[in-house]
Amino acid sequence: MSDLLLPAEPTQRGIARELYALAAEQPIISPHGHVDPGLIADDAPFPDPARLIIVPDHYVTRMLLSQGIPPAELGVPTRDGTPSEQDGRTIWRRFAEHWHLFRGTPSRLWLERTFETVFGVTERLSPATADAIYDEISARLATPEFRPRALFERFNIEVLATTESPLDDLARHARLADDGWGGPGGRVITTFRPDNVVDMEFEDWAGNVARLGEITGEDTGTYRGYLNALRARRLDFVAAGATSTDHGHLTARTLLLTPAEAEALYTRGLSGTATAEDAEAFRAHMLIEMARMSIEDGLVMQLHPGAFRNHNRWLYDRHGRDVGGDVPHAVEFVHGLKPLLDAHGNDPRLRLVLFTLDEDTFTRELAPLAGGYAALFLGAPWWFLDSPEVMRRFREAVTETAGFYNTAGFVDDTRAFCSIPVRHDVARRIDAGFLARLVAEHRLPLDEAAETIVDLAYRLPKKIFKIGEKL
Amino acid sequence: MSDLLLPAEPTQRGIARELYALAAEQPIISPHGHVDPGLIADDAPFPDPARLIIVPDHYVTRMLLSQGIPPAELGVPTRDGTPSEQDGRTIWRRFAEHWHLFRGTPSRLWLERTFETVFGVTERLSPATADAIYDEISARLATPEFRPRALFERFNIEVLATTESPLDDLARHARLADDGWGGPGGRVITTFRPDNVVDMEFEDWAGNVARLGEITGEDTGTYRGYLNALRARRLDFVAAGATSTDHGHLTARTLLLTPAEAEALYTRGLSGTATAEDAEAFRAHMLIEMARMSIEDGLVMQLHPGAFRNHNRWLYDRHGRDVGGDVPHAVEFVHGLKPLLDAHGNDPRLRLVLFTLDEDTFTRELAPLAGGYAALFLGAPWWFLDSPEVMRRFREAVTETAGFYNTAGFVDDTRAFCSIPVRHDVARRIDAGFLARLVAEHRLPLDEAAETIVDLAYRLPKKIFKIGEKL
Amino acid sequence: MSDLLLPAEPTQRGIARELYALAAEQPIISPHGHVDPGLIADDAPFPDPARLIIVPDHYVTRMLLSQGIPPAELGVPTRDGTPSEQDGRTIWRRFAEHWHLFRGTPSRLWLERTFETVFGVTERLSPATADAIYDEISARLATPEFRPRALFERFNIEVLATTESPLDDLARHARLADDGWGGPGGRVITTFRPDNVVDMEFEDWAGNVARLGEITGEDTGTYRGYLNALRARRLDFVAAGATSTDHGHLTARTLLLTPAEAEALYTRGLSGTATAEDAEAFRAHMLIEMARMSIEDGLVMQLHPGAFRNHNRWLYDRHGRDVGGDVPHAVEFVHGLKPLLDAHGNDPRLRLVLFTLDEDTFTRELAPLAGGYAALFLGAPWWFLDSPEVMRRFREAVTETAGFYNTAGFVDDTRAFCSIPVRHDVARRIDAGFLARLVAEHRLPLDEAAETIVDLAYRLPKKIFKIGEKL
Repeated sequence: MSDLLLPAEPTQRGIARELYALAAEQPIISPHGHVDPGLIADDAPFPDPARLIIVPDHYVTRMLLSQGIPPAELGVPTRDGTPSEQDGRTIWRRFAEHWHLFRGTPSRLWLERTFETVFGVTERLSPATADAIYDEISARLATPEFRPRALFERFNIEVLATTESPLDDLARHARLADDGWGGPGGRVITTFRPDNVVDMEFEDWAGNVARLGEITGEDTGTYRGYLNALRARRLDFVAAGATSTDHGHLTARTLLLTPAEAEALYTRGLSGTATAEDAEAFRAHMLIEMARMSIEDGLVMQLHPGAFRNHNRWLYDRHGRDVGGDVPHAVEFVHGLKPLLDAHGNDPRLRLVLFTLDEDTFTRELAPLAGGYAALFLGAPWWFLDSPEVMRRFREAVTETAGFYNTAGFVDDTRAFCSIPVRHDVARRIDAGFLARLVAEHRLPLDEAAETIVDLAYRLPKKIFKIGEKL
Repeated sequence: MSDLLLPAEPTQRGIARELYALAAEQPIISPHGHVDPGLIADDAPFPDPARLIIVPDHYVTRMLLSQGIPPAELGVPTRDGTPSEQDGRTIWRRFAEHWHLFRGTPSRLWLERTFETVFGVTERLSPATADAIYDEISARLATPEFRPRALFERFNIEVLATTESPLDDLARHARLADDGWGGPGGRVITTFRPDNVVDMEFEDWAGNVARLGEITGEDTGTYRGYLNALRARRLDFVAAGATSTDHGHLTARTLLLTPAEAEALYTRGLSGTATAEDAEAFRAHMLIEMARMSIEDGLVMQLHPGAFRNHNRWLYDRHGRDVGGDVPHAVEFVHGLKPLLDAHGNDPRLRLVLFTLDEDTFTRELAPLAGGYAALFLGAPWWFLDSPEVMRRFREAVTETAGFYNTAGFVDDTRAFCSIPVRHDVARRIDAGFLARLVAEHRLPLDEAAETIVDLAYRLPKKIFKIGEKL
Repeated sequence: MSDLLLPAEPTQRGIARELYALAAEQPIISPHGHVDPGLIADDAPFPDPARLIIVPDHYVTRMLLSQGIPPAELGVPTRDGTPSEQDGRTIWRRFAEHWHLFRGTPSRLWLERTFETVFGVTERLSPATADAIYDEISARLATPEFRPRALFERFNIEVLATTESPLDDLARHARLADDGWGGPGGRVITTFRPDNVVDMEFEDWAGNVARLGEITGEDTGTYRGYLNALRARRLDFVAAGATSTDHGHLTARTLLLTPAEAEALYTRGLSGTATAEDAEAFRAHMLIEMARMSIEDGLVMQLHPGAFRNHNRWLYDRHGRDVGGDVPHAVEFVHGLKPLLDAHGNDPRLRLVLFTLDEDTFTRELAPLAGGYAALFLGAPWWFLDSPEVMRRFREAVTETAGFYNTAGFVDDTRAFCSIPVRHDVARRIDAGFLARLVAEHRLPLDEAAETIVDLAYRLPKKIFKIGEKL
């Protein structure tokens, strides 16, 4: 067993090894991520290593962009059809030439450990070894053992949640259910993510809302019909196995409007006359509506605020969304969430998991809120913060006020299916190291640390995200 | 001697032990806290363990609320008289069932160490041991050795400051003075905390101001009379032993108004027409007035900004103030304090101790201000930040710019008399560990670290808070 | 070799020693600082120890001010001619009396190591040793080996950049060029810092702009002439060896104005009718103009935002600028830099190095921006943050998102010529310790860490600041 990421100091390393061993044998609960459910439904072989590992990974392509290598040279598709690099091996070599850029980053950890533990590649990546590693991974990918379902088993994943919009037809999840992999209580479940019908500033919101009406048979030309459509669609998602919703918002602002006020905003949105303030107010209001619906239907609510989408305009113009052009900005929770918390913050039927991209809120806002409201839980450090150093700082920052049991366990939040076990492994190692320090400093007995690490790795995410529960 | 909280790495632990031993033998100076002075004045036996330890501790009850256990089930009194749990043993058992929630929190440290060092209880708390521990503590509490004054001696407390409002009749402190325990230079002294007559948004501010007039014989119907009344009341507090004032404000904003402007705000406040902005402006202005009075009468000034009071509305509606419903919010010092600092920031007669609930201000604002103005000192991490990890981060953050000698030592800020020695002990251990690292990294010679730890534990708080000085 | 600042834990210390040894032998690249170029041009003996070490060091005088010792007692000149202490030995003794204030500060490290490694003083400073140390340093300073050029050689400085305003006649740099020390590719080069002609709120901005016109022969009465003058002056600086510009701004705000809008602001500025908002808008706009000029002439652009200048009014009134009265305030980069980044953020011809005084922006803003835009690099922790603890936190915070190769190496930013080697040494030791932890935690192989430490110490600053390149 490797000592990767365990504390260097021998006493703590010894304790951390013991604790990590307990975590390592737990199945993976992945309650939030972006794997394509079609991947498991189809169970088709993966493409070449570059298309599997480099092209879709915006952590990788943005780092190379930051050093002047344009995404098109790495195969990232363009919006206007301008050709981008198509040869997998060329992309792979280009990547290998810049491997030093990833020193000290989680991308390096994820990739290197994936090479090793998933593909059995132990040579270090470099221009000299790039071709051999490419060939080695290619060869593995051609075998049945590297089909998605086989890897799913090998990865010891108990449940994997994907994320779909209300406009998704859930056909892939239906196929999974038919195969005994999906549906309520299944191994692959969906998550209800309504941003594209809640955020008036989303591309073609009005069109999206119209489609929502078609799908549900509700008249989304009215606010009442819109709410009914959302309610209905949430139940469809529950039927497809969902246990949670997810909300990606610019801020954590919430707002309690009267139905008439909300209706007026909605109407302005449909007529194309809503201002940016209207859109923000409507998003803020809809978070409370979503909380109300969660109280009704039991779906756990996740909030991911604080991403400034498409900040890199040049990149967006050329390559569109979700290619590494987002950045965090400062987020405020204490005033922002107050209207929602005033309404439902202590309601035991509500479960709201808060994520942040702004670690400055760990001790000042998140831990005090989660440590004082019955409905609130803290999600793991996310996205830019999904890294060993921040995971450690997260525990150091929030545990003293919120304890361990107001935190919801790790979420990998990834599109990269093959990296899932490594990502969970990193989180488990960091938690083991943190707990080991508490033990070594006589702040927690070893047996309680042992119970806690299993709670963090397995029991807490399962319980808080209602995995396996009937809603 | 326990190695609790000392660094795990052996070299540093060895040095930390030496340094901690020097700190551990120092008497306790407690210049800021919320112990009821009647406790020492009456010297009556403590109530049962649940009423002593659980019911009044909002750190405990808010953590249980965050996991869905309502405060009424823990005996917290309700505003409307709805019954809350009255049986001490039932409360204690409920608490013991949820003991795991406190893993990694300072509450666990404080409670466990208090059980052990104050009550001699060495068994670990659990549902199985709850009754036995309850009985053991109850038995101790019935003995004369566990009366408040006996514990005061045993705790090696040199001076304990309590906190009273200008409307307090100071009768408890008068009794202490009669017994040779209170008054100027005494062992139990008061602190002047005028929030309820300075903050127009405080419950019944106008009534409070009227009572202030009655107590002092000044006409608080006028602004001039109001200032005179404050001046007079401050002197009453000095006569009762106070060496400092304390100011709990929503923000750190200060504002220099002309007397006419201040008077106009005051009049609007009395007539009930002040806006929220008026109230904030008046608070901001009054901080400068208080600084001026401090220059006159010598009282050290403490500022505790940044608590959003009664954030949890459900909790406030049921149980009122000070039961765990406050949370921090972001605070700004650099622009906020400028008017006060422009007026008096380098005046050696002023001593202003700044506290924060927002650790993001440690390096950016607090250390540069305290390291550059003669009147400013930094208080210890407070409330949500009164914890080992934050204490360590505080030293790591502020020492490099403000040094040790612009920090004012530890304040326990507690209502929980029995936890006082443990809280100071935690701070001393963390300081020992921090200094040990400096020594181990060859940044400070051991003899200077030894002098510094005693300064931090004893000499600095005594000097900066003017303990034992004639004002 | 001393273990100063290396991790105390033996495994990491061992690795850190190896890495540090590699860094220690690298020449010093100092791409940003405030040494007087006349110092090297004249190569005259230094003054007495107090005038060399205490009087001009605002880190020292502000710490003493924070404890009530007025700067005049330390020899800091007054604006109105009020006498300040003139006797070097008296100043030195006063400083020695308060040496304990600097425990745990970088000033202590810098001074003590300078005493030892530059002047061969190994006794500890104290009132008892003050005179002897003063005499020892004085004696050294009288010898030819302690002339600036001799020390420059001994310090192993490869290139030192100074900072001049566009109004500087560059005569000192011309003399350096004549002596074979200056000019393009020289050992002492200049940096173009136009704050006094860009910031309308700078003292006598209009007069400065007029002088800029005289120097360049352009009509700075018009906005077009003003831009031409800046362009011309930048080329003069290039001819004097400059490879970069530097911009000290209150905020990181940028703004894209039309020429007509910019001209209108400029005209209001000249006529004395510009508001504070106008001044901020003009500064924000000029950052984009400067970026454009950098794309033309190749000068690397540095941005130092977030210093609230002359915050301590009492100090400013008595002693003027740059004597320790500035403090940081919160800075926002994500929204602030967007207009500039929209225009030029991915242009490989632009190189913008960002500095901050607000470490709360490390993970939330700076690392994501530098890790996602081709034009952006991160400068080292600066000023109040130029300290071991923050250097370590900087690496821990930014590396995971921006890697090592979007950081620009250490800048000493100092006026104190004799402290330059010590400051770089501190940064190298901290980087060695950080990398050692990565190695000890199996996150980076030793050979890659070894390559990285040399990159950080030498290759990266040289490359990113275009040291030795032809512009």
